[in-house]
Amino acid sequence: MMKLSESLASYIRSVSYEQLPDDVVEFTKLCILDYFSSAIAGSDTPPVAKVEEMVRELGGHEQATLITGGKSSVTNAALLNGASSHIVEQDDIHKGSIIHAATVVIPAALAIAERDDLSGKDLITAVVAGYEVCFRIGEAVTPSHYYYWHNTATCGTFGAAAAVAKLLDLSEEQIVHALGSAGTQAAGLWEFIEDGAMSKQLHPGKAAMNGVIAGLLSQKDFTAASRILEGNRGFFEAMSDAYDVSKVTEGLGETYKIMENSFKVHASCRHTHHAMDIVAELSRERGLDAEDIESIEVGTYQVAINITDNDNPVTVYQGKFSLQYCTAHAFVMQEGSLNTFNEENLWNEEIRGLMSKVRIYVDSAKDGAYPNQWGALAKVILKNGEHIELDTDYPKGDPEQPVTKDELVDKFMQLSRKVDQSERERIAQKILSLEEVEDLEMLFPKNRVDIK
Amino acid sequence: MMKLSESLASYIRSVSYEQLPDDVVEFTKLCILDYFSSAIAGSDTPPVAKVEEMVRELGGHEQATLITGGKSSVTNAALLNGASSHIVEQDDIHKGSIIHAATVVIPAALAIAERDDLSGKDLITAVVAGYEVCFRIGEAVTPSHYYYWHNTATCGTFGAAAAVAKLLDLSEEQIVHALGSAGTQAAGLWEFIEDGAMSKQLHPGKAAMNGVIAGLLSQKDFTAASRILEGNRGFFEAMSDAYDVSKVTEGLGETYKIMENSFKVHASCRHTHHAMDIVAELSRERGLDAEDIESIEVGTYQVAINITDNDNPVTVYQGKFSLQYCTAHAFVMQEGSLNTFNEENLWNEEIRGLMSKVRIYVDSAKDGAYPNQWGALAKVILKNGEHIELDTDYPKGDPEQPVTKDELVDKFMQLSRKVDQSERERIAQKILSLEEVEDLEMLFPKNRVDIK
Repeated sequence: MMKLSESLASYIRSVSYEQLPDDVVEFTKLCILDYFSSAIAGSDTPPVAKVEEMVRELGGHEQATLITGGKSSVTNAALLNGASSHIVEQDDIHKGSIIHAATVVIPAALAIAERDDLSGKDLITAVVAGYEVCFRIGEAVTPSHYYYWHNTATCGTFGAAAAVAKLLDLSEEQIVHALGSAGTQAAGLWEFIEDGAMSKQLHPGKAAMNGVIAGLLSQKDFTAASRILEGNRGFFEAMSDAYDVSKVTEGLGETYKIMENSFKVHASCRHTHHAMDIVAELSRERGLDAEDIESIEVGTYQVAINITDNDNPVTVYQGKFSLQYCTAHAFVMQEGSLNTFNEENLWNEEIRGLMSKVRIYVDSAKDGAYPNQWGALAKVILKNGEHIELDTDYPKGDPEQPVTKDELVDKFMQLSRKVDQSERERIAQKILSLEEVEDLEMLFPKNRVDIK
Repeated sequence: MMKLSESLASYIRSVSYEQLPDDVVEFTKLCILDYFSSAIAGSDTPPVAKVEEMVRELGGHEQATLITGGKSSVTNAALLNGASSHIVEQDDIHKGSIIHAATVVIPAALAIAERDDLSGKDLITAVVAGYEVCFRIGEAVTPSHYYYWHNTATCGTFGAAAAVAKLLDLSEEQIVHALGSAGTQAAGLWEFIEDGAMSKQLHPGKAAMNGVIAGLLSQKDFTAASRILEGNRGFFEAMSDAYDVSKVTEGLGETYKIMENSFKVHASCRHTHHAMDIVAELSRERGLDAEDIESIEVGTYQVAINITDNDNPVTVYQGKFSLQYCTAHAFVMQEGSLNTFNEENLWNEEIRGLMSKVRIYVDSAKDGAYPNQWGALAKVILKNGEHIELDTDYPKGDPEQPVTKDELVDKFMQLSRKVDQSERERIAQKILSLEEVEDLEMLFPKNRVDIK
């Protein structure tokens, strides 16, 4: 019986750009575009400014571009560019593994690819491998792992290490060590959510950085556990109540799990999107106001309730993680894009009033369908006595309910507003023709302040 | 009810050099001396060379001295100086928490203290605080946490953050965040032990580095979970089957837990020392040879068996973690110092032959007394039919069976052999009068190759 890390190492070695189907290449470029949407949008926020300040204090060789401008070491770049892309709650999500892969895999891959003068094709290939590995590991431990652990950070570390291993052209044995070093660095507890704390950004940044460290050390034959996943004291046993090892290898190399990735259209926690989609649509179609509503009951899966049950958010950030607030917000605003989540709307009387009429509960059917479906029911009772039943199995942006390339370009143009229009257009064009790009520094915005 | 992190933050703020009893100051200097013994001894080993190579590749401002020579950023120094001090299996151990605190707390504290031109007194105070915090957290989760997790790394991260927080003179609120960022970065799985892999060194290095990151970010008001220990999705719930929160705060500020620290005289896993002490003493006193022995049965606590049951070690490193090998080694060599653990003795026929006669088992009385006592029984049956019963509750170097200052200086002189005699003497003298030292760079060996 092959060890899981050996199977993954063999897969990582075997992935090649030439064998990627066209639709996988096209989709991966959209993942990378969507990464830059979030990374640029987050680049001038307080948590990122604090990480940037630390990175500047520490210094490092100018190996890789920082999303805030200038260059630093690959570990510093991975840390900062990871932190920056997980703050506006617009980054991608894979529902089977509950992982936001872009914010961990892509900054790690970008840093190493830029340092080593690798090409857009190399980057695409590494991202495909990184997503595959972390999605599979995340699926193996979902849902139990997710109660305590931030899958994006913990499982993401393996994805970052896999992408880095691919770019460094490590041997199979070295990749086994890289995965071992990734797993033994994996960290990130959900406890921060109680305080709405900045750990949310530290997690993906550190995961990307730790994946880079795992790869760099393995290149020097630094050894690690060969059965980091399935071993008696490994990742699965230590960090999940139940797990399914078959998820790691079943069909490995035959399909491309990156194609299961979902994109976010609302700027809040993904576990609020189902309800937002259906109440926003109702509000738009019927032209309803908050004052028309007697009550809204939202039924969804247990995990959504665990993460988003908050009937009194007092910061914009907490609002993005409150299913009650997001439901009311989407009904009143009829959408949930980044610029609608602000202090003014947090305290908007119409939204707060409606929020007090939103009740949330676990629906057993939706809970049973999770994590394959991230669905919700909403029963809306109008003051005129009308009962309206709404239902969705897939939030918009899921593969089953896809967004278009144009919609993702629009999202990029909106989220990167702080960059000049012509520069935004240049970046989008570069990423959409990434297979022709030789200098990956060209993907970053120009003319930012250098970090020394 | 005060949050645990708030209690710890209040304690950390309150510790002051002026109020430390003399014996605590003297003992803390021995802890720091003992750190340098191990750090220098490990500085030219392969795992450390690989970390050093990575640190050199990454670069960083010259803020803190590397044990391998030259300077780099505080995070790089903490990483390398942590990795270097946990390789020759001679570093200190606190049995109540199963933590080797020196290898995590001291490199983190040294790096920040040197960067900020702080004094020997500041370093002593920070080390006292760092040990206190990680010992208490480790005691709270012992023994269940230890099955999967390397306490030194996981709990040690809190200790490193506490020491750094003290040196940075953070506010109570900032210290709460520092502890939160420490806990959410805490990592390090025992799975590597199956392969005897280099993760052993990565763990304390990363823990020290992560503690530094936690402190630096908190100084910039980067926020984290306020109930990282006791919260529903915090460190205790996620990473232990059972825990005792009272261990964190009971008597906090009234005693000095650093005084419970143990020093190692044998160069193997601490869980082998009990048996080594008693069989080496028997062998010395009775002048016995391996060929006199019919069988040796060693009874000890379950955790020792979990970690050290290996009846066929094939590397020197595995030998240090094999209770069967270590028992035979100590009987034949009549000691277990660093220079006796080598390839020659690993395959020594007399030792291997005796090893095959060693049986180990869980003794219920020793298991019940653990972790307060790390004891063992040995029943030695001679070929002449004589039965000898040996028993110890405390390995040598425990506070109940202490080593002297002179013995620790001798250990330092032996472990730092690669440094010139006069230089070794200079360093020992500096550390033993640390309260008078103003320039902490003086604690490191001179004339090593600079890392750029």
